Amino acid sequence: MKRAPESYHHGKLRKALLDEAAKLVEREGVDALTLRELARRLGVSHAAPAHHFAGKTALLSELAADGFEELTKALDDGASRGHTPEQRLRETGRAYVAFALARPGHYRVMFGRELGESRLARLADAGACAYEALERVVAAALPAGRAKSRERVREASFLAWSSTHGAAMLLLDGPPLAGVDASRREAVIRSLIDHLTAKVAAAIAEK
Amino acid sequence: MKRAPESYHHGKLRKALLDEAAKLVEREGVDALTLRELARRLGVSHAAPAHHFAGKTALLSELAADGFEELTKALDDGASRGHTPEQRLRETGRAYVAFALARPGHYRVMFGRELGESRLARLADAGACAYEALERVVAAALPAGRAKSRERVREASFLAWSSTHGAAMLLLDGPPLAGVDASRREAVIRSLIDHLTAKVAAAIAEK
Repeated sequence: MKRAPESYHHGKLRKALLDEAAKLVEREGVDALTLRELARRLGVSHAAPAHHFAGKTALLSELAADGFEELTKALDDGASRGHTPEQRLRETGRAYVAFALARPGHYRVMFGRELGESRLARLADAGACAYEALERVVAAALPAGRAKSRERVREASFLAWSSTHGAAMLLLDGPPLAGVDASRREAVIRSLIDHLTAKVAAAIAEK
Repeated sequence: MKRAPESYHHGKLRKALLDEAAKLVEREGVDALTLRELARRLGVSHAAPAHHFAGKTALLSELAADGFEELTKALDDGASRGHTPEQRLRETGRAYVAFALARPGHYRVMFGRELGESRLARLADAGACAYEALERVVAAALPAGRAKSRERVREASFLAWSSTHGAAMLLLDGPPLAGVDASRREAVIRSLIDHLTAKVAAAIAEK
Protein backbone atom coordinates (compact mmCIF):
# COMPACT_ATOMS: atom_id res chain seq x y z
CA MET A 1 0.00 0.00 0.00
CA LYS A 2 1.69 3.16 -1.21
CA ARG A 3 0.85 6.55 0.15
CA ALA A 4 1.29 9.80 -1.67
CA PRO A 5 4.07 12.01 -0.29
CA GLU A 6 1.66 14.74 0.72
CA SER A 7 -0.12 12.32 3.05
CA TYR A 8 2.88 12.48 5.41
CA HIS A 9 3.19 15.41 7.75
CA HIS A 10 6.81 16.29 8.33
CA GLY A 11 7.09 14.54 11.71
CA LYS A 12 5.12 11.54 10.50
CA LEU A 13 7.40 10.82 7.56
CA ARG A 14 10.40 10.85 9.88
CA LYS A 15 8.77 8.25 12.10
CA ALA A 16 7.58 6.21 9.10
CA LEU A 17 11.15 6.16 7.73
CA LEU A 18 12.54 4.94 11.06
CA ASP A 19 9.83 2.27 11.43
CA GLU A 20 10.37 1.04 7.88
CA ALA A 21 14.15 1.01 8.41
CA ALA A 22 13.79 -1.19 11.51
CA LYS A 23 11.59 -3.63 9.56
CA LEU A 24 13.98 -3.73 6.63
CA VAL A 25 17.00 -4.39 8.86
CA GLU A 26 15.10 -7.11 10.70
CA ARG A 27 14.15 -8.93 7.51
CA GLU A 28 17.08 -8.30 5.18
CA GLY A 29 19.96 -6.94 7.21
CA VAL A 30 21.53 -3.51 7.51
CA ASP A 31 23.13 -3.65 4.08
CA ALA A 32 19.86 -3.92 2.24
CA LEU A 33 18.94 -0.51 3.64
CA THR A 34 19.30 2.65 1.57
CA LEU A 35 17.37 5.91 1.86
CA ARG A 36 16.28 5.36 -1.73
CA GLU A 37 14.83 1.92 -0.90
CA LEU A 38 12.98 3.36 2.12
CA ALA A 39 11.51 6.08 -0.08
CA ARG A 40 10.40 3.46 -2.59
CA ARG A 41 8.72 1.37 0.11
CA LEU A 42 6.89 4.35 1.58
CA GLY A 43 5.89 5.63 -1.83
CA VAL A 44 7.52 9.02 -1.39
CA SER A 45 9.99 10.78 -3.69
CA HIS A 46 13.67 9.79 -3.64
CA ALA A 47 14.50 13.20 -2.23
CA ALA A 48 12.03 13.08 0.66
CA PRO A 49 14.19 11.13 3.20
CA ALA A 50 16.99 13.69 2.78
CA HIS A 51 14.76 16.28 4.47
CA HIS A 52 15.02 14.21 7.64
CA PHE A 53 18.34 12.37 7.50
CA ALA A 54 21.66 13.46 6.01
CA GLY A 55 22.39 9.88 5.00
CA LYS A 56 22.19 6.24 5.97
CA THR A 57 24.52 6.57 8.97
CA ALA A 58 22.51 9.51 10.27
CA LEU A 59 19.28 7.53 10.01
CA LEU A 60 20.80 4.44 11.65
CA SER A 61 22.19 6.63 14.45
CA GLU A 62 18.74 8.04 15.22
CA LEU A 63 17.27 4.53 15.09
CA ALA A 64 19.93 3.25 17.50
CA ALA A 65 19.49 6.22 19.83
CA ASP A 66 15.73 5.55 19.95
CA GLY A 67 16.57 1.91 20.69
CA PHE A 68 18.95 2.75 23.54
CA GLU A 69 16.36 5.09 25.07
CA GLU A 70 13.72 2.39 24.91
CA LEU A 71 16.18 -0.18 26.27
CA THR A 72 17.02 2.05 29.24
CA LYS A 73 13.35 2.34 30.07
CA ALA A 74 12.89 -1.43 29.73
CA LEU A 75 15.87 -2.10 32.03
CA ASP A 76 14.59 0.35 34.65
CA ASP A 77 11.12 -1.21 34.46
CA GLY A 78 12.69 -4.65 34.78
CA ALA A 79 14.70 -3.64 37.83
CA SER A 80 11.57 -2.27 39.50
CA ARG A 81 9.96 -5.72 39.32
CA GLY A 82 12.55 -7.30 41.69
CA HIS A 83 12.36 -7.18 45.47
CA THR A 84 16.02 -7.95 46.26
CA PRO A 85 19.17 -6.72 44.48
CA GLU A 86 19.65 -10.22 43.00
CA GLN A 87 16.05 -10.36 41.79
CA ARG A 88 16.35 -6.85 40.35
CA LEU A 89 19.45 -7.96 38.44
CA ARG A 90 17.68 -11.05 37.17
CA GLU A 91 14.62 -9.09 36.05
CA THR A 92 16.86 -6.54 34.34
CA GLY A 93 18.53 -9.38 32.41
CA ARG A 94 15.17 -10.77 31.33
CA ALA A 95 14.08 -7.29 30.25
CA TYR A 96 17.30 -6.91 28.25
CA VAL A 97 16.80 -10.10 26.22
CA ALA A 98 13.07 -9.42 25.84
CA PHE A 99 13.86 -5.98 24.39
CA ALA A 100 16.28 -7.48 21.83
CA LEU A 101 13.76 -10.12 20.75
CA ALA A 102 10.94 -7.56 20.51
CA ARG A 103 13.02 -4.99 18.57
CA PRO A 104 15.40 -7.07 16.43
CA GLY A 105 15.87 -4.34 13.80
CA HIS A 106 16.80 -1.73 16.41
CA TYR A 107 18.94 -4.19 18.35
CA ARG A 108 21.04 -5.23 15.35
CA VAL A 109 21.71 -1.62 14.46
CA MET A 110 22.54 -0.67 18.08
CA PHE A 111 25.22 -3.35 18.20
CA GLY A 112 26.22 -3.44 14.56
CA ARG A 113 29.42 -2.11 13.10
CA GLU A 114 27.72 0.50 10.92
CA LEU A 115 27.59 3.11 13.69
CA GLY A 116 31.36 3.23 14.04
CA GLU A 117 31.59 6.58 12.33
CA SER A 118 28.50 8.11 13.86
CA ARG A 119 28.99 11.44 15.61
CA LEU A 120 25.45 11.83 16.88
CA ALA A 121 25.68 13.13 20.45
CA ARG A 122 22.22 11.78 21.29
CA LEU A 123 23.41 8.28 20.38
CA ALA A 124 26.48 8.46 22.62
CA ASP A 125 24.32 9.77 25.47
CA ALA A 126 21.58 7.17 25.02
CA GLY A 127 24.13 4.33 24.84
CA ALA A 128 25.84 5.57 28.01
CA CYS A 129 22.49 5.81 29.82
CA ALA A 130 21.58 2.23 28.91
CA TYR A 131 24.96 0.97 30.09
CA GLU A 132 24.60 2.92 33.34
CA ALA A 133 21.15 1.42 33.94
CA LEU A 134 22.74 -2.04 33.66
CA GLU A 135 25.78 -1.16 35.76
CA ARG A 136 23.61 0.31 38.53
CA VAL A 137 21.73 -2.94 39.18
CA VAL A 138 24.95 -4.95 38.87
CA ALA A 139 26.76 -2.76 41.39
CA ALA A 140 23.82 -2.95 43.78
CA ALA A 141 23.81 -6.76 43.57
CA LEU A 142 27.53 -7.22 44.32
CA PRO A 143 28.16 -8.63 47.81
CA ALA A 144 28.37 -5.77 50.30
CA GLY A 145 31.22 -7.28 52.27
CA ARG A 146 34.01 -6.58 49.80
CA ALA A 147 34.94 -3.22 48.37
CA LYS A 148 33.05 -2.47 45.18
CA SER A 149 36.02 -1.32 43.17
CA ARG A 150 35.61 0.12 39.66
CA GLU A 151 37.31 -3.07 38.41
CA ARG A 152 34.85 -5.42 40.13
CA VAL A 153 31.84 -3.50 38.87
CA ARG A 154 33.27 -3.55 35.36
CA GLU A 155 33.94 -7.30 35.43
CA ALA A 156 30.51 -8.15 36.81
CA SER A 157 28.80 -5.81 34.33
CA PHE A 158 30.73 -7.45 31.50
CA LEU A 159 29.47 -10.87 32.65
CA ALA A 160 25.87 -9.61 32.79
CA TRP A 161 26.09 -7.77 29.47
CA SER A 162 27.94 -10.54 27.59
CA SER A 163 25.55 -13.26 28.68
CA THR A 164 22.40 -11.30 27.79
CA HIS A 165 23.87 -9.91 24.55
CA GLY A 166 25.05 -13.37 23.50
CA ALA A 167 21.69 -14.90 24.41
CA ALA A 168 19.86 -12.26 22.40
CA MET A 169 22.09 -12.68 19.33
CA LEU A 170 22.00 -16.49 19.41
CA LEU A 171 18.21 -16.51 19.82
CA LEU A 172 17.75 -13.91 17.06
CA ASP A 173 19.90 -15.94 14.69
CA GLY A 174 18.39 -19.21 15.82
CA PRO A 175 21.18 -21.77 16.34
CA PRO A 176 20.19 -22.80 19.90
CA LEU A 177 16.71 -23.58 18.61
CA ALA A 178 17.80 -25.96 15.86
CA GLY A 179 15.75 -29.12 16.18
CA VAL A 180 13.24 -27.57 18.59
CA ASP A 181 9.66 -28.17 17.54
CA ALA A 182 7.87 -24.94 16.50
CA SER A 183 5.11 -25.53 19.05
CA ARG A 184 7.65 -25.64 21.90
CA ARG A 185 9.82 -22.69 20.81
CA GLU A 186 8.27 -20.08 23.10
CA ALA A 187 8.54 -22.35 26.14
CA VAL A 188 12.12 -23.35 25.35
CA ILE A 189 13.19 -19.72 24.81
CA ARG A 190 11.60 -18.75 28.14
CA SER A 191 13.31 -21.56 30.04
CA LEU A 192 16.70 -20.80 28.44
CA ILE A 193 16.44 -17.10 29.36
CA ASP A 194 15.15 -17.82 32.88
CA HIS A 195 17.96 -20.27 33.58
CA LEU A 196 20.62 -17.93 32.21
CA THR A 197 19.46 -14.80 34.03
CA ALA A 198 18.98 -16.65 37.32
CA LYS A 199 22.46 -18.20 37.15
CA VAL A 200 24.19 -14.98 36.18
CA ALA A 201 22.39 -12.93 38.83
CA ALA A 202 23.29 -15.52 41.47
CA ALA A 203 26.93 -15.63 40.28
CA ILE A 204 27.22 -11.85 40.61
CA ALA A 205 25.37 -11.64 43.94
CA GLU A 206 27.06 -14.64 45.55
CA LYS A 207 28.40 -14.11 49.03
CA MET B 1 51.86 -6.86 -4.28
CA LYS B 2 50.04 -8.57 -7.09
CA ARG B 3 50.88 -12.03 -8.25
CA ALA B 4 50.27 -13.36 -11.72
CA PRO B 5 47.48 -15.95 -11.90
CA GLU B 6 49.92 -18.66 -13.00
CA SER B 7 51.87 -18.27 -9.77
CA TYR B 8 49.01 -19.95 -7.90
CA HIS B 9 48.78 -23.67 -8.01
CA HIS B 10 45.16 -24.78 -7.92
CA GLY B 11 45.13 -25.64 -4.21
CA LYS B 12 47.09 -22.54 -3.28
CA LEU B 13 44.68 -20.12 -4.93
CA ARG B 14 41.82 -21.70 -3.04
CA LYS B 15 43.61 -21.11 0.25
CA ALA B 16 44.67 -17.60 -0.77
CA LEU B 17 41.04 -16.74 -1.59
CA LEU B 18 39.85 -17.98 1.81
CA ASP B 19 42.64 -16.11 3.66
CA GLU B 20 41.93 -12.89 1.79
CA ALA B 21 38.20 -13.30 2.41
CA ALA B 22 38.76 -13.60 6.17
CA LYS B 23 40.89 -10.45 6.14
CA LEU B 24 38.36 -8.52 4.10
CA VAL B 25 35.46 -9.51 6.39
CA GLU B 26 37.52 -8.59 9.44
CA ARG B 27 38.33 -5.12 8.15
CA GLU B 28 35.27 -4.15 6.11
CA GLY B 29 32.48 -6.55 6.94
CA VAL B 30 30.85 -9.39 5.04
CA ASP B 31 29.07 -7.10 2.63
CA ALA B 32 32.26 -5.66 1.19
CA LEU B 33 33.15 -9.15 0.02
CA THR B 34 32.62 -10.24 -3.59
CA LEU B 35 34.50 -12.90 -5.57
CA ARG B 36 35.44 -10.12 -8.01
CA GLU B 37 36.99 -8.00 -5.23
CA LEU B 38 38.95 -11.01 -3.97
CA ALA B 39 40.27 -11.65 -7.48
CA ARG B 40 41.30 -8.01 -7.75
CA ARG B 41 43.15 -8.12 -4.44
CA LEU B 42 44.99 -11.31 -5.34
CA GLY B 43 45.79 -10.08 -8.84
CA VAL B 44 44.10 -12.96 -10.60
CA SER B 45 41.48 -12.88 -13.35
CA HIS B 46 37.84 -12.23 -12.47
CA ALA B 47 37.00 -15.75 -13.55
CA ALA B 48 39.64 -17.47 -11.40
CA PRO B 49 37.66 -17.67 -8.10
CA ALA B 50 34.80 -19.42 -9.90
CA HIS B 51 37.05 -22.44 -10.41
CA HIS B 52 37.01 -22.91 -6.64
CA PHE B 53 33.72 -21.49 -5.38
CA ALA B 54 30.32 -21.42 -7.05
CA GLY B 55 29.59 -18.04 -5.47
CA LYS B 56 29.90 -15.88 -2.38
CA THR B 57 27.73 -18.11 -0.18
CA ALA B 58 29.76 -21.16 -1.21
CA LEU B 59 33.02 -19.40 -0.30
CA LEU B 60 31.64 -18.14 3.03
CA SER B 61 30.37 -21.65 3.81
CA GLU B 62 33.82 -23.15 3.31
CA LEU B 63 35.36 -20.36 5.39
CA ALA B 64 32.87 -20.98 8.21
CA ALA B 65 33.37 -24.76 8.03
CA ASP B 66 37.15 -24.25 8.36
CA GLY B 67 36.42 -21.96 11.30
CA PHE B 68 34.18 -24.48 13.08
CA GLU B 69 36.80 -27.21 12.59
CA GLU B 70 39.49 -24.98 14.07
CA LEU B 71 37.17 -23.94 16.90
CA THR B 72 36.43 -27.58 17.77
CA LYS B 73 40.15 -28.27 18.01
CA ALA B 74 40.66 -25.15 20.16
CA LEU B 75 37.83 -26.17 22.50
CA ASP B 76 39.21 -29.72 22.85
CA ASP B 77 42.70 -28.33 23.52
CA GLY B 78 41.22 -25.93 26.07
CA ALA B 79 39.36 -28.71 27.85
CA SER B 80 42.56 -30.79 28.06
CA ARG B 81 44.22 -27.99 30.07
CA GLY B 82 41.82 -28.37 33.02
CA HIS B 83 42.18 -30.90 35.83
CA THR B 84 38.60 -30.90 37.12
CA PRO B 85 35.33 -30.75 35.16
CA GLU B 86 34.83 -27.15 36.33
CA GLN B 87 38.37 -26.17 35.29
CA ARG B 88 37.90 -27.91 31.94
CA LEU B 89 34.73 -25.91 31.38
CA ARG B 90 36.49 -22.68 32.31
CA GLU B 91 39.45 -23.40 30.00
CA THR B 92 37.06 -24.29 27.19
CA GLY B 93 35.34 -20.93 27.64
CA ARG B 94 38.66 -19.09 27.52
CA ALA B 95 39.63 -21.02 24.40
CA TYR B 96 36.30 -20.09 22.81
CA VAL B 97 36.74 -16.35 23.31
CA ALA B 98 40.43 -16.54 22.35
CA PHE B 99 39.49 -18.23 19.08
CA ALA B 100 36.97 -15.50 18.24
CA LEU B 101 39.47 -12.73 18.96
CA ALA B 102 42.22 -14.46 16.97
CA ARG B 103 39.98 -15.23 13.96
CA PRO B 104 37.53 -12.32 13.79
CA GLY B 105 36.87 -12.72 10.06
CA HIS B 106 36.02 -16.40 10.43
CA TYR B 107 34.03 -15.81 13.60
CA ARG B 108 31.80 -13.12 12.11
CA VAL B 109 31.01 -15.34 9.13
CA MET B 110 30.37 -18.41 11.33
CA PHE B 111 27.74 -16.49 13.29
CA GLY B 112 26.58 -14.08 10.63
CA ARG B 113 23.25 -14.24 8.83
CA GLU B 114 24.80 -14.78 5.40
CA LEU B 115 25.01 -18.56 5.81
CA GLY B 116 21.26 -18.91 6.23
CA GLU B 117 20.86 -20.42 2.78
CA SER B 118 24.01 -22.50 2.77
CA ARG B 119 23.53 -26.17 1.99
CA LEU B 120 27.13 -27.24 2.51
CA ALA B 121 27.07 -30.55 4.40
CA ARG B 122 30.60 -30.00 5.71
CA LEU B 123 29.44 -26.75 7.34
CA ALA B 124 26.49 -28.40 9.10
CA ASP B 125 28.77 -31.20 10.31
CA ALA B 126 31.54 -28.86 11.50
CA GLY B 127 29.06 -26.63 13.32
CA ALA B 128 27.48 -29.64 15.04
CA CYS B 129 30.93 -30.94 16.08
CA ALA B 130 31.86 -27.59 17.65
CA TYR B 131 28.57 -27.46 19.54
CA GLU B 132 29.07 -31.04 20.75
CA ALA B 133 32.59 -30.20 21.99
CA LEU B 134 31.06 -27.42 24.09
CA GLU B 135 28.13 -29.51 25.28
CA ARG B 136 30.41 -32.37 26.35
CA VAL B 137 32.40 -30.27 28.83
CA VAL B 138 29.20 -28.60 30.06
CA ALA B 139 27.48 -31.95 30.67
CA ALA B 140 30.57 -33.28 32.46
CA ALA B 141 30.64 -30.23 34.75
CA LEU B 142 26.98 -30.43 35.81
CA PRO B 143 26.59 -31.63 39.41
CA ALA B 144 26.42 -35.42 39.47
CA GLY B 145 23.71 -35.57 42.13
CA ARG B 146 20.79 -34.55 39.96
CA ALA B 147 19.68 -36.22 36.75
CA LYS B 148 21.41 -34.71 33.72
CA SER B 149 18.30 -34.36 31.62
CA ARG B 150 18.49 -33.17 28.01
CA GLU B 151 16.81 -29.98 29.22
CA ARG B 152 19.41 -29.25 31.90
CA VAL B 153 22.31 -29.85 29.52
CA ARG B 154 20.70 -27.58 26.94
CA GLU B 155 20.08 -24.78 29.47
CA ALA B 156 23.61 -24.94 30.88
CA SER B 157 25.13 -25.10 27.38
CA PHE B 158 23.09 -22.06 26.40
CA LEU B 159 24.46 -20.17 29.41
CA ALA B 160 28.05 -21.13 28.49
CA TRP B 161 27.60 -20.40 24.80
CA SER B 162 25.69 -17.12 25.26
CA SER B 163 28.21 -15.68 27.69
CA THR B 164 31.26 -16.54 25.58
CA HIS B 165 29.58 -15.55 22.30
CA GLY B 166 28.41 -12.26 23.80
CA ALA B 167 31.84 -11.61 25.30
CA ALA B 168 33.50 -12.28 21.95
CA MET B 169 31.13 -10.04 20.00
CA LEU B 170 31.29 -7.18 22.53
CA LEU B 171 35.09 -7.35 22.64
CA LEU B 172 35.35 -7.53 18.83
CA ASP B 173 33.11 -4.51 18.47
CA GLY B 174 34.73 -2.69 21.34
CA PRO B 175 32.04 -1.12 23.55
CA PRO B 176 33.25 -2.62 26.87
CA LEU B 177 36.68 -1.12 26.19
CA ALA B 178 35.47 2.44 25.69
CA GLY B 179 37.59 4.70 27.85
CA VAL B 180 40.20 2.02 28.56
CA ASP B 181 43.74 3.24 27.94
CA ALA B 182 45.40 1.47 24.97
CA SER B 183 48.32 0.34 27.14
CA ARG B 184 45.94 -1.46 29.53
CA ARG B 185 43.66 -3.07 26.91
CA GLU B 186 45.28 -6.51 26.88
CA ALA B 187 45.23 -6.76 30.67
CA VAL B 188 41.63 -5.55 30.90
CA ILE B 189 40.47 -7.99 28.22
CA ARG B 190 42.21 -10.85 30.04
CA SER B 191 40.67 -9.97 33.39
CA LEU B 192 37.18 -9.60 31.88
CA ILE B 193 37.42 -13.00 30.17
CA ASP B 194 38.91 -14.69 33.24
CA HIS B 195 36.20 -13.34 35.51
CA LEU B 196 33.42 -14.29 33.12
CA THR B 197 34.63 -17.84 32.42
CA ALA B 198 35.32 -18.53 36.10
CA LYS B 199 31.87 -17.32 37.16
CA VAL B 200 30.01 -19.18 34.44
CA ALA B 201 31.92 -22.43 35.03
CA ALA B 202 31.22 -22.17 38.77
CA ALA B 203 27.53 -21.39 38.15
CA ILE B 204 27.17 -24.50 35.97
CA ALA B 205 29.20 -26.77 38.26
CA GLU B 206 27.66 -25.58 41.52
CA LYS B 207 26.48 -28.28 43.89
